Amino acid sequence: MKRVPLSPLRAILARQLRLLRAERGWSQERLAAEAGLNRTYLSAVERSEQNISIDNLYRIAQALDVSAARLLTDL
Amino acid sequence: MKRVPLSPLRAILARQLRLLRAERGWSQERLAAEAGLNRTYLSAVERSEQNISIDNLYRIAQALDVSAARLLTDL
Repeated sequence: MKRVPLSPLRAILARQLRLLRAERGWSQERLAAEAGLNRTYLSAVERSEQNISIDNLYRIAQALDVSAARLLTDL
Repeated sequence: MKRVPLSPLRAILARQLRLLRAERGWSQERLAAEAGLNRTYLSAVERSEQNISIDNLYRIAQALDVSAARLLTDL
């Protein structure tokens, strides 16, 4: 089984989440509520400590009104 | 807590995986081996039955030599 380092996607997602949330002037509480997720879970995603699933990625993308692909793209 | 339907991302990912795998003439066994994943797991992802994590999404993207964002985009 190939050893793969911790996915760099976590850091990209964390950066894009913080950026998109700041653009909207939203707290973590607000984004968590809009996405129907727990704030501490969202906080862990923003610290790259959470191996988030695509169902939850979709909920966050919907809340921010962006595509999921956008969340995984470093602009 | 907002009720969110099963994420449409699963179907997009499933479609793009089958497309990209076919383009390379790869079997599920070959892609699973390249990504260091279990074939039955990959098969479930291709049937939209698996709520895949971004770490595993990254492994598949690496194996196919595409961006993770590409895997979540319906072209």
